[in-house]
Amino acid sequence: MDPNHSNIKNRKRTSEEIYHQACKIIPGGVSRNTIFHKPYPHYISHASGCYTTDIDGTQRIDFANNMAALIHGHTHPEIENAIINQIKKGTAYSMATETEVLYAQQLCDRAPSFEKIRFVNSGTEAVMAMIKTARAFTGRPKIAKAEGAYHGTYDFAEVSQTPKPTNWGNIDSPNSVALATGTPQAVLDNVLIFPYNDIERTLAILDKNANELACVLIDLVPHRVGLMKGDHEFINAIYEWTRKNDVLIAFDEVVTFRVNYGGAQQNYNIKPDLTALGKIIGGGFPIGAFTGRADVMKVLDPSENKLLFPHSGTFSANPVSMTAGRIAMEMFNKEAILKLNTLTQKAINQIREAIKIADVPVSITGAGSMFRLHLKSVAPTSFREAYQTKETKLLINEMLDYLFFKENIMMINTLACMFSTVIKQKEVDILSQAFLNMFKQFKSQLDTFQ
Amino acid sequence: MDPNHSNIKNRKRTSEEIYHQACKIIPGGVSRNTIFHKPYPHYISHASGCYTTDIDGTQRIDFANNMAALIHGHTHPEIENAIINQIKKGTAYSMATETEVLYAQQLCDRAPSFEKIRFVNSGTEAVMAMIKTARAFTGRPKIAKAEGAYHGTYDFAEVSQTPKPTNWGNIDSPNSVALATGTPQAVLDNVLIFPYNDIERTLAILDKNANELACVLIDLVPHRVGLMKGDHEFINAIYEWTRKNDVLIAFDEVVTFRVNYGGAQQNYNIKPDLTALGKIIGGGFPIGAFTGRADVMKVLDPSENKLLFPHSGTFSANPVSMTAGRIAMEMFNKEAILKLNTLTQKAINQIREAIKIADVPVSITGAGSMFRLHLKSVAPTSFREAYQTKETKLLINEMLDYLFFKENIMMINTLACMFSTVIKQKEVDILSQAFLNMFKQFKSQLDTFQ
Repeated sequence: MDPNHSNIKNRKRTSEEIYHQACKIIPGGVSRNTIFHKPYPHYISHASGCYTTDIDGTQRIDFANNMAALIHGHTHPEIENAIINQIKKGTAYSMATETEVLYAQQLCDRAPSFEKIRFVNSGTEAVMAMIKTARAFTGRPKIAKAEGAYHGTYDFAEVSQTPKPTNWGNIDSPNSVALATGTPQAVLDNVLIFPYNDIERTLAILDKNANELACVLIDLVPHRVGLMKGDHEFINAIYEWTRKNDVLIAFDEVVTFRVNYGGAQQNYNIKPDLTALGKIIGGGFPIGAFTGRADVMKVLDPSENKLLFPHSGTFSANPVSMTAGRIAMEMFNKEAILKLNTLTQKAINQIREAIKIADVPVSITGAGSMFRLHLKSVAPTSFREAYQTKETKLLINEMLDYLFFKENIMMINTLACMFSTVIKQKEVDILSQAFLNMFKQFKSQLDTFQ
Repeated sequence: MDPNHSNIKNRKRTSEEIYHQACKIIPGGVSRNTIFHKPYPHYISHASGCYTTDIDGTQRIDFANNMAALIHGHTHPEIENAIINQIKKGTAYSMATETEVLYAQQLCDRAPSFEKIRFVNSGTEAVMAMIKTARAFTGRPKIAKAEGAYHGTYDFAEVSQTPKPTNWGNIDSPNSVALATGTPQAVLDNVLIFPYNDIERTLAILDKNANELACVLIDLVPHRVGLMKGDHEFINAIYEWTRKNDVLIAFDEVVTFRVNYGGAQQNYNIKPDLTALGKIIGGGFPIGAFTGRADVMKVLDPSENKLLFPHSGTFSANPVSMTAGRIAMEMFNKEAILKLNTLTQKAINQIREAIKIADVPVSITGAGSMFRLHLKSVAPTSFREAYQTKETKLLINEMLDYLFFKENIMMINTLACMFSTVIKQKEVDILSQAFLNMFKQFKSQLDTFQ
């Protein structure tokens, strides 16, 4: 037996020791690449509110919140009590639960486009089921998505998630670039790529494939594209195009639902046909959901004579995720959202002040309770503008390490923050001071990126 | 506000009332088609051990166990305590956890083919990631799967899940039949269908596409095919073929892992290249995993210079699913499995006795702690033999209703039982008596199906 393993009951292992064991049985030693870190990732002991404590005893402020999934931070007492009550009654059954119906009602009441809803287990499953719903309704195979946008791990949805200057092709007609080796050419052939926030080129690309398109997939504030808002004119233009061409418009609000009471879509004058949800709607537990027009969602109805899209899932709508999500979203009401977004805006203002004081070429994009820093003086408006070279990425990793080890601050590895409602002015002040320190520390390197 | 909704705090609603609300906001009123029931599904109140209680107060013995996912029944105290402890420390973080490493080690220690492992959120995600791993390793696009086999909701994996005599085509070369409307033709073109347990035809089909195949996907006891065991000669023949042709063999053990300590594969003299897991390994919480050869799984390693298959997931390896799963599987040791499988065999023997006494043309297939009834005197050995006509399905639904309402017994809707370790001889006796009553009740109808 591995000596590290046998010792576990006698003394606490270090992160390095645990990782040593992990590398023998997990590729790269991590279950999620997002937590991968050289020379080893840090292992958590426990968390509470907006603070995490690793097994070596170091406490950090958490601005990552499990990749934007924890809207009330860690171990919120109301969520905790509700789940423990549910767990004592069981965690999963081969029967229906009232809690899934109550939660479905609560979510459908939040946005006019949410007419009918179905729950799944992750954002990946939500986007996959949403695309399959669009195909079943239209009978058409293709989808269109933005270059650089992340929509989970369904292979059709991940085409051109991370294209590079060497393979992304002409901006007039971006290449469909496989994320994973071995992606069937047939997958690439069924996904059109358009440049985000570029109306003219996008409409030209859509026009060429109008008859084969099931849906246009859109994230209104796409994190990996650059966390910039979709221009109203751009979103409106795509919406109008889909109305004219009988193509569905499907919003991926897995990340952006936090932006407003009815999601980021509430800030646009548009009722999408379908919306995918995930992250915060699980209250800290695995979840996904897809929702939209009643006539479109009817393809899933098993009481129909011809069921167009048979769909099930062992853990879908399990009562623990439903209960945690329902309590979390009940607390995430209009007042809480206004307060959270206001505090986040204050943080952004304070960081902009720090940028000015340190006189560094850094800009900020974002919406609601999310923002992302860019190592360029003018904020990017498209994926290709926001694209990070190898050198930029190296510097960002150095900056993330500085924040993590010297300032005890956890951020998302794109240099993004996703706030939770338990963050207060105190933590915002610590954050902006930490950024100021960091900007000063890295000024000479930052200046080379202008 | 819906009057049903506003009353909820004043009085308990009936299943019919809840379903009435559900139909307005959920397609067909259910989040999973497996729990759909006419005129309405029954809603659960709570469960404990092998007993469920619905909101109308009726207690039933649970032989379905959330579609085979609960190996220790409901609310097992050891699992419950461990999860509550974890929940008080947090449910999900943007950091690594020791519990995922300990659990990865435990699982890898169970079967020689489990060299490296990654966790995801469902069986669907596990099979999808496994197929993408096979494609990334081989650089080839196609997969081969058995006609009628269920492998989750990834569209490539669900081709020919429910083909019918009108579209399944010649047995020498079964059609690739879409499950959902709108499935891209390109998906069908990349999936070969072979007839389960038919060596000659299967090898002929594989031979024709050897150069394009990433993997052959196999369930050793495929539930929807008929829950018959894969013949050793059949599985061996496919294995040998993959060795000769440099194609991977990938086992879907999401359901069958319960069959033995190292899964159903332990009963075969074969070390597969990849295996997908799910269901029981979550201890009642959402989970999936895929595991296999270290050199194959290396495609997922983010420390490699060229990462062939980038893969992440917000809720993957979350510490609640990891903790619940680890405790559940620790208790599911060799002794517990032997005891469970022995009791299940006893149940099968008692039901066979009931079949004989009632003199009905019913047969049983299965393995380990799972079995399924067929309305024909000779047990089917292939999907087409096991295929249920509309009339058979109607009678099966009547029988399931009889068991549910008259005998207070919950089964899986294929007339299958998936035992848990908390079922005892007492419940087995109730089950076999209930079957005897049912066989007598339905004898005249059953006799027409010979």
